[in-house]
Amino acid sequence: MKILVTGAAGFLGLRLIEALLQRGSLSNRAGNAQPITRIVAFDRVPLSGIDDPRVEVVCGDIADPEVLNNLIDAQTDSIFHLAAVVSSQAEQDFELGMRINFTATQNMLERIRIIGSCPKWVMTSSVAVFGGQLPEQVEDQQVWAPQSSYGTQKAMNDLLLADYSRRGFVDGRSLRMPTIVVRPGKPNMAASSFASGIIREPLNGEPSVCPVPVETRLWLMSPAQAISNLIKGHELPAERLKQGRVINMPGLSITVEQMIDALRRTAGDEVAGRIRLERNPAIERIVGSWPGSFCATYAKSLGFTADHDFADVIGQFMAEYPPQVA
Amino acid sequence: MKILVTGAAGFLGLRLIEALLQRGSLSNRAGNAQPITRIVAFDRVPLSGIDDPRVEVVCGDIADPEVLNNLIDAQTDSIFHLAAVVSSQAEQDFELGMRINFTATQNMLERIRIIGSCPKWVMTSSVAVFGGQLPEQVEDQQVWAPQSSYGTQKAMNDLLLADYSRRGFVDGRSLRMPTIVVRPGKPNMAASSFASGIIREPLNGEPSVCPVPVETRLWLMSPAQAISNLIKGHELPAERLKQGRVINMPGLSITVEQMIDALRRTAGDEVAGRIRLERNPAIERIVGSWPGSFCATYAKSLGFTADHDFADVIGQFMAEYPPQVA
Repeated sequence: MKILVTGAAGFLGLRLIEALLQRGSLSNRAGNAQPITRIVAFDRVPLSGIDDPRVEVVCGDIADPEVLNNLIDAQTDSIFHLAAVVSSQAEQDFELGMRINFTATQNMLERIRIIGSCPKWVMTSSVAVFGGQLPEQVEDQQVWAPQSSYGTQKAMNDLLLADYSRRGFVDGRSLRMPTIVVRPGKPNMAASSFASGIIREPLNGEPSVCPVPVETRLWLMSPAQAISNLIKGHELPAERLKQGRVINMPGLSITVEQMIDALRRTAGDEVAGRIRLERNPAIERIVGSWPGSFCATYAKSLGFTADHDFADVIGQFMAEYPPQVA
Repeated sequence: MKILVTGAAGFLGLRLIEALLQRGSLSNRAGNAQPITRIVAFDRVPLSGIDDPRVEVVCGDIADPEVLNNLIDAQTDSIFHLAAVVSSQAEQDFELGMRINFTATQNMLERIRIIGSCPKWVMTSSVAVFGGQLPEQVEDQQVWAPQSSYGTQKAMNDLLLADYSRRGFVDGRSLRMPTIVVRPGKPNMAASSFASGIIREPLNGEPSVCPVPVETRLWLMSPAQAISNLIKGHELPAERLKQGRVINMPGLSITVEQMIDALRRTAGDEVAGRIRLERNPAIERIVGSWPGSFCATYAKSLGFTADHDFADVIGQFMAEYPPQVA
């Protein structure tokens, strides 16, 4: 079985590849487990840290149709499409966001349609497709009203994928992911970057700025849950997707204040004291437009799962990335 | 004031141009009425029947960026974008549908963004963006779940237009139109073509096939209402569009059986007897996925209006297009 992972050098991409290698097999479209013989790990920059003969590292521009012609062929059984420009960056650079977040997806789907092989396809969508007047808990029937270019591009991908799937060009599944917390590494240009930053930086002895009011409610998922749900999304038989190909994931609904409290309980006052509240209107506008809680009825009926306790999520992070502070 | 109308040779395009010429002025973005000095009437084929020095007829391929470069310039104050491939045709020819219904819209918006002139923009969207499990009456908060490529393409246009408007590239308004009935002329490849056909053909002494069960509930609007709402959509000041740029239009909710009854009452048994019921699964699948009734709360709050009585709609058609039968 040949698998393509885009955004492979990213945090989720790397974890997914590790999980796939460890798992060793995935089910094909007929529902039969097949050994994973090759993972094409594609990104703009080369990924490092994975040394396995099954992994082939490829770099290039994902929006370039020539690149895609070499990347996707009739032997590509499954695609995990994770490559994206994050929310604040897509807001600052409209052309870049459209090119990477939408045009690349469209070009990939076109490549697949022309080959005619109908591979499985799992991609990450986002709660940023929602906005405007929202109920306290968002149901699966809630209209999409993105308040950012990132959310717009993700919603357009969802529509395209659903239609390509309906027509039998691809066997697609789009998972509307909560904000993934706690990400390791450095802050990025996602509007939600602070949600990891306010946990990660204080644990590593560094100061961190919280740019939104502490009452802000977020919809979160741990990295381990995200990977487990991505694989679950792949493994589900197509005939179970009766309510469509776009699935609002379950998650953990929690305020920033509750996150900080959990950090204080887990790591102490000194660590929690490294968070400085300093509102940033641009971040606040984008993050404030996202729903803080979802019913996720359809996803739950399909067996997707959520984290239950934020202290556990912090504990998970501390175990995997032991604090760098002396 | 220079206005571009795409799909100008179509039924709605022609009526709109006539209405604009008669009206003589439109409000600009500052809200001031300006005389209409030029209407660029664009279509794939030349339009005929309008003889007015203000109208410039231009033909070409709307998806061709070169064509658009000549069509839209910094002097283009307003655009009515009506050009589209109809639903059954977009279903039969995926590439054509994507090219005309989506790529052309994207290219037009890109041309506007690059010019930087932020014109007013009114386009027609469709109830075909809805589908799946639907309540009896669809609210403005209902999620989009198109069951056709046409509906998918229209929903993608709506998302793009909303984001381009939010960013100040264009002052867009997308009107989700009901099925327009009674259209004059010949049947076309719209899945909803029969809705006009079962009135028009019998009145002209010809047989007509109804391809859906008579219990099917449709959401309708007369041509006169459609034109009035398109102009209303243009004239609304941007600051009133607080709930977004995509507006589900009010309409007339009526079953096919009630339509046939109204025809019988208006034109007699012999005329109504020319309708033959013969179900077509392909048409039934598409039309059956569309909602038959909407709340249209937002649209009503903005002053958009609906027809109240289908017999009046038939009367309107008979007055404008006197029956051709001896």
